[in-house]
Amino acid sequence: MRLVPIAVPALLIAAACAQPASPPPVPDPQVLMEADRAFAAAVAEGGTEAWVSWFADDGAQITPGAGEIRGHEAIRENMAGLDDPNYSLRWEPLRADIAASGDLGWTTGSYVSEGIGADGQAKRGQGRYVSIWRKQADGTWKVVMDLGNPTSS
Amino acid sequence: MRLVPIAVPALLIAAACAQPASPPPVPDPQVLMEADRAFAAAVAEGGTEAWVSWFADDGAQITPGAGEIRGHEAIRENMAGLDDPNYSLRWEPLRADIAASGDLGWTTGSYVSEGIGADGQAKRGQGRYVSIWRKQADGTWKVVMDLGNPTSS
Repeated sequence: MRLVPIAVPALLIAAACAQPASPPPVPDPQVLMEADRAFAAAVAEGGTEAWVSWFADDGAQITPGAGEIRGHEAIRENMAGLDDPNYSLRWEPLRADIAASGDLGWTTGSYVSEGIGADGQAKRGQGRYVSIWRKQADGTWKVVMDLGNPTSS
Repeated sequence: MRLVPIAVPALLIAAACAQPASPPPVPDPQVLMEADRAFAAAVAEGGTEAWVSWFADDGAQITPGAGEIRGHEAIRENMAGLDDPNYSLRWEPLRADIAASGDLGWTTGSYVSEGIGADGQAKRGQGRYVSIWRKQADGTWKVVMDLGNPTSS
């Protein structure tokens, strides 16, 4: 069989092939800082349902005294206080970290809670928290784990 | 210029080139279960220094009442109690999650602490914790964030 001369030089193709694809962009942890701030703004506006909606379906939180609370229904029950007009929970992320694959990351920051205690007196708490985030199939980021600790109460 | 017939068919090279490289192996979260168990075993044996050695250089923990404690020196001071022969901290991971890139993940589980209180009585605590892990340049996994909450005290 006679070889047909080929207009596209095969060696150039092979050389192009040997070059690695350009590396994927490094994910920016800033995306999680923004997600966490949007989460806080949503809860300030929408209370318990907003809180729940920012969790993945199998998301969980660890609450002092209650252990791990997992899934939307359990989280909704645990965070019913967010609908109390006398109670507020505000937070601000301080830093974030994200995996090279851009599918998992975490934020940490400080929170302040304000409400009315059982004695009728104003009650203020503050502390530090960690939220772990997973990118969902639809491209949104949802919380898969959330917990914090008071620095005073 | 005359084209030189080429023995290796260019179209075959191009076809081979178009096939994506085989996907990278999916990281197994089990590696973090094992790391967390090894961490617990090391601390049971080696106390405070073992605890510190499992943290990344910029690793941090959030401790009730104390806020965020970051870096080996601060963590060593905070966890000096692990060298108290009357005190023990044991834990067991319950599940783990890892990024597709295999560089970041987390474990969660339950812990039990036992010691002697200021009143001389035996004191037992238990709770749930989260440890966030980052693979280091040398391939080892180190803790970058650790915190937990008591379920009873």
